[in-house]
This record gives sequence, structure tokens and C-alpha cells, in this order.
Amino acid sequence: MKIPDVCISRLFIYLRVLRRLSKKKVATVSSEELAKDIHINPNKVRKDLSYFGQFGRRGIGYDVEQLIESIVEILGLNKNWNMAICGVGNLGSALFSYKGFRDQGFNIVAAFDNDPDKIGKSWDSVRVSSSKSIKKEVRQKNVEVAIITVPASEAQASVNEFVRAGVKTILNFAPTEVVVPEGVKLRNVDLSVEIVNLTHFLRNLVGLKNGL
Amino acid sequence: MKIPDVCISRLFIYLRVLRRLSKKKVATVSSEELAKDIHINPNKVRKDLSYFGQFGRRGIGYDVEQLIESIVEILGLNKNWNMAICGVGNLGSALFSYKGFRDQGFNIVAAFDNDPDKIGKSWDSVRVSSSKSIKKEVRQKNVEVAIITVPASEAQASVNEFVRAGVKTILNFAPTEVVVPEGVKLRNVDLSVEIVNLTHFLRNLVGLKNGL
Repeated sequence: MKIPDVCISRLFIYLRVLRRLSKKKVATVSSEELAKDIHINPNKVRKDLSYFGQFGRRGIGYDVEQLIESIVEILGLNKNWNMAICGVGNLGSALFSYKGFRDQGFNIVAAFDNDPDKIGKSWDSVRVSSSKSIKKEVRQKNVEVAIITVPASEAQASVNEFVRAGVKTILNFAPTEVVVPEGVKLRNVDLSVEIVNLTHFLRNLVGLKNGL
Repeated sequence: MKIPDVCISRLFIYLRVLRRLSKKKVATVSSEELAKDIHINPNKVRKDLSYFGQFGRRGIGYDVEQLIESIVEILGLNKNWNMAICGVGNLGSALFSYKGFRDQGFNIVAAFDNDPDKIGKSWDSVRVSSSKSIKKEVRQKNVEVAIITVPASEAQASVNEFVRAGVKTILNFAPTEVVVPEGVKLRNVDLSVEIVNLTHFLRNLVGLKNGL
């Protein structure tokens, strides 16, 4: 089933709201209620959910538990995924300890770096290995997702290593554009993009103050 | 001008492509060329750019330099913004040294933490202060954007401090939902959302292998 990326991201947001409702023992929810808190148009909620055959019942809405189960399955969150972090700097360390990854079934099983001072050290039960052993460890540990947190200049070489090792999904935090062959799914995360929404807002605010 | 958040995010992506073209001395670009590399529909590119009155000329396209200038202005990137980081753990440290922030005009001018071991230490020229002095320093240093990287349990209290100090834009990395009063713009960043797009892809890949 081909669902657009932006819809997948929204499904994850609905899931958070639904889990909160489930904790409060709420049994059903309308698309309007689901949309309200997260400032999304209810029509879009209905459209997103219809992608995978979930239709609310008029006057009743969606069954909260059933919808949670369906979204969890669509997002592949009903199993654990083995992830590797490549680049054990501040960002790599932050992601390693990022609360929520483990809750979602994202297990970091391998870590790689080129720095001899870092190789051999351990994070929890994961020992940092040389980037030279990416191929070997990816296979041994069945790594399914690679997270790239190396400097920009090393990003493409690291990505290539994971691709050669057979990894099909790569999340790149290095501030550079990398390329992958067809059949490999890559997401580039640029943290600046989060900030431009704020600066655009501020710019308008300042404009309003100055009567522009 | 009210432009949807998702369009603002795309403008930033166009900007990256345009800057790459500018480096290569490319003078004009069509919406098709602009759309191609980033897998966006050319119609969407045209619609996004029309929000702020940019229309390509038939058979010629958009003027690269002029479009860069317009997007930079819309995003508020033609000035520097003063930012504070609240929570000097791994993620806070990673953001502090995140290459690209400074290039975009995002200056981190203040850092706060509750840990006595961290208070008083310096990052580059920024001294870590106690969270108790948020209000004072926000005013002294004219902080415009607050970045929250404290643990979930402290996030709302930190946000409240910045709101009381008059900060109008807040980027929350703490894995919890925080609330802000009207007139304050908040963005919650959940790094898990980046991964669910990959796990959804993997799930389908595994499904295909198994003939599902």
C-alpha cells in the first residue's frame, strides 16, 4: 500500500492523540475531536484514515483501540527494528539516549565511529566499533535502519557502506545531501527546517508591529 | 501574509536547491527542474511560490537569484535571530554545535540548565546560566527563539519561564506535549516521526517478500 510520507507523519501524530485518549479510557473519537488539538482539518483526518480502509461511523466516530491497532500495524510499530548509529558525537549520543525510540520498538544495536578514542567504549550494552566493520556487524546484528550522524564530509562514504551491507532504510542527520541507489529509502533530516517556521512567524510579527 | 507551515518547510527545501544552482551559476530554473530532485509535484511548487507573488515566466522559468532573495525574506533569513537553549544535555550540546544554524543566521546567545555542575561552564562564548535567570537574560540578550532540550518532566516549567519572559517562538524537543498561550508559536519536534516513515517502508518491503 503506497501512502504518502506526509500522511505517514500525520498517522504518527494521530497515534499519539489516540494513545492519550486510550489512557483516559475513551472508547470512540470523531475526526473533529482527533483534528482539533493538532490543528488539522477533519476532512484531512478522514482522508488519511481512509487510505487504509478506516472509516468512522456517523454519529459514533472511530473505535479508539481498533484505530490504534491499525495505525501501529501500518507504521510497522508492532515489531522491533534494529538500528545502527554511525557517528558517536553529541547528536549520535543524544539519539542513543532519546527517550521514546525504545518505547516505539526502535532498538539501537550497533554504533560506529572512526575515532580511536571512541572505539571500544560502551553505551549501555552497545560497544562502539570501527566504521570498517559496518558490513560485518550489520549482517551479524541484522541492522535494518542506519542513522547517520557523522560530519558532512563523511556522510556519503558512511551511507555507501550501509548500502553495500544491504541496509534499505537510512536516516541522514548530516547537513549535506547524500544519494542512495533505487530501492533504498533515505530521509534527510535538517533541523534548520524546524526553525524557519518560527522565523517566518517572527518576521510577520515584527512586520505587524512596524505596520508593514 | 499567512502561509501554511508545510509550505514554509517546502520553501526552505527549494531554497537549498536554488542555492546549489546559484553556486553553479545557473540563472533560471523551471518548476519542473525545481521539483524533480526533491520529488515534489511541479504544480505544488508553482502553487507554493504563488503564495508570495512569484510566478515563473513561460518558457523561461524563475530567476534563481531573485527567487533566493524572495524566499530568504519570506523565511526571515535576511536577519540574525537570537536563540537560547534550555537544557545542556547531549541534544542541547548537539544543537549548539549544529553546523548550519549559524549559516542561517541563528545565533545561540544563551544557555540554561539546572545542574550546578553545568552552570558557569562555557560553550564558545556562551556561559551556561541557571534556569532561574531565564527572565533576566532573555531580556538582556534579546532572545527571540527558545529551544527546549530538558527532560520531559521539566519541559512545561521551562516553556512557562520563556513565555513569562516574553519569548514568542518556542521549539520543543522534549518528548512530551507542552502548551503555550495564544500569540506564542510552538513547534514540537518528535524525532521518532522521522523513523516511522522508514519502518512503514520496511514493513511493506517485508510484506512484499512474504507475498503479502
